[in-house]
Amino acid sequence: MATLGDKGEFDLIARIKKRVGDVDRPEVVLGIGDDAAILRPRAGEDLVVSTDALVEGVHFRWRNQAPATVGRRALRVNLSDLAAMGARPVGFTLALAAPASLSMSRIDGLLAGLLRDARDYGCPLIGGNVARARETSLVVTVIGAVARGRALRRDAARPGDRLFVTGTLGAGALALARSEKRGATLRRLPEPRLDAGRVLAQMKACCACIDLSDGFEADLAHVLEESGVGAQVDVDRLPTSRGFAAACAREGFDPLQLAVRCGEDYELLFSLRGAQARGNSEARLRARLGVRVTEIGRIVKGAGIVGLPPSSRRGGFRHF
Amino acid sequence: MATLGDKGEFDLIARIKKRVGDVDRPEVVLGIGDDAAILRPRAGEDLVVSTDALVEGVHFRWRNQAPATVGRRALRVNLSDLAAMGARPVGFTLALAAPASLSMSRIDGLLAGLLRDARDYGCPLIGGNVARARETSLVVTVIGAVARGRALRRDAARPGDRLFVTGTLGAGALALARSEKRGATLRRLPEPRLDAGRVLAQMKACCACIDLSDGFEADLAHVLEESGVGAQVDVDRLPTSRGFAAACAREGFDPLQLAVRCGEDYELLFSLRGAQARGNSEARLRARLGVRVTEIGRIVKGAGIVGLPPSSRRGGFRHF
Repeated sequence: MATLGDKGEFDLIARIKKRVGDVDRPEVVLGIGDDAAILRPRAGEDLVVSTDALVEGVHFRWRNQAPATVGRRALRVNLSDLAAMGARPVGFTLALAAPASLSMSRIDGLLAGLLRDARDYGCPLIGGNVARARETSLVVTVIGAVARGRALRRDAARPGDRLFVTGTLGAGALALARSEKRGATLRRLPEPRLDAGRVLAQMKACCACIDLSDGFEADLAHVLEESGVGAQVDVDRLPTSRGFAAACAREGFDPLQLAVRCGEDYELLFSLRGAQARGNSEARLRARLGVRVTEIGRIVKGAGIVGLPPSSRRGGFRHF
Repeated sequence: MATLGDKGEFDLIARIKKRVGDVDRPEVVLGIGDDAAILRPRAGEDLVVSTDALVEGVHFRWRNQAPATVGRRALRVNLSDLAAMGARPVGFTLALAAPASLSMSRIDGLLAGLLRDARDYGCPLIGGNVARARETSLVVTVIGAVARGRALRRDAARPGDRLFVTGTLGAGALALARSEKRGATLRRLPEPRLDAGRVLAQMKACCACIDLSDGFEADLAHVLEESGVGAQVDVDRLPTSRGFAAACAREGFDPLQLAVRCGEDYELLFSLRGAQARGNSEARLRARLGVRVTEIGRIVKGAGIVGLPPSSRRGGFRHF
């Protein structure tokens, strides 16, 4: 079985360039192959930039994820950051590090997954770097665009804002916990809420927004800290998918733990304010955003979250 | 001695945010701390984007480089890519991966070096990611700006163009080879030719440009391949610093090998064309670009490089 070491760096770069082909977008003047990519921003737009890494043994394991799934996840977690800003994708760079012993079939699987999602989400690979390392890692830097001054931020929540989440909570953590417990293949992928984010960025009522990558509790806490406010959450209203509680009971998992204290949801948490907010029922928001929307609480004066039961476990994943 | 594992991820992020402080630039609407940074491009400018990685054990070793030097190098090799495009720095993201056992003094040294150069080169840290890994690595993605349509590319060399390099060749490779041979501390840092690149991007005569990161021979070959041309090089004109040949002789290194087949120079290689080119003597170019400039050959029809003696060693560093 051929490895990266057999084929070499230049073969790898040539493979990537060939797979990507020409990028047919007016915003991408020059893609892969020079010292830098050249982008031509549209007039009246801001650009947003975000970087996220997937590291073997930390964010993924070869034994329970197909290479294509790893590649797709690497791009999707970054696209979710664009969604949280209300931005549309423009392009991304990839810094791929891997041991020489990595099989070309894994490399090809990674690239196939990554570039499939790049095509589907309209976010072309425009450059990057390959390097040798002891473990495989993918660092993606994604660039998006949003109407000037309309990017959604974490620091804009104010007392009185109503709090909403898209989709459901806990399903990603449940799939991961099941996979870890049984050694089964993890197939579930985050769905970046790009369309919902773009609609929210156009709504005057929408103030603060974040994607749930660290977990509902930890990410809400980020919004509250950055905005200098607190939140009251109605724990009974937190949306979970049909069968979620029963599945947790069968497997012996704590549903609240999975729904609020684990990451992997990549839904959007956002706040609405004022008259336009009052006119936005969950049903109407669902129709506008194209995804289930649930009102789960409100922003209050002070600090911290009221309404979530205390936990002995720290919220969110910690690296060190 | 405190380690990253003792302090934790959030302490690390807080340290970085505190060190960076507020970014006072109209182009950077929002820096570190949200799902993404927000940039406001100036009208009439293109943006350029480049990603480069430094991996422990591949690009640097703790035993012969101070942590601050590693941090500075991580940014400078990326700034050199901006220089090669003729762009000015706008900002950069950092994906830092490290083992929990890494000492906080090394982390602090890395950050101090990185952020010192970020300040000196006017390229603020605007976002990033931290993750656990088996070895330390720094992936920098740098964003620059250049007048619309004026970015310097690799694929624009044409037969008849005159070829120039800035600075001297081989000094970086000599310092590295000495350090490897004696285990001495490597202090030499690349000097990104940002000012020279910006002047070149404004010159109508300047066509193709690349930075010498892989080595003169390998990087010239990139230009030739992308442009579909060949080059004739006058090996006797290749500029080296005073005492370079003598130092190589003392140490038993092949000077031509270090000057043309090793990386670490980060000088600019560029081509000039037409009437304006003929009016540009080396002395005049030196005055305009603010750095020594040497004419070292010309672009010809065909492919490949004529004038460099053959070598038994492959040119440039290969990862796999």
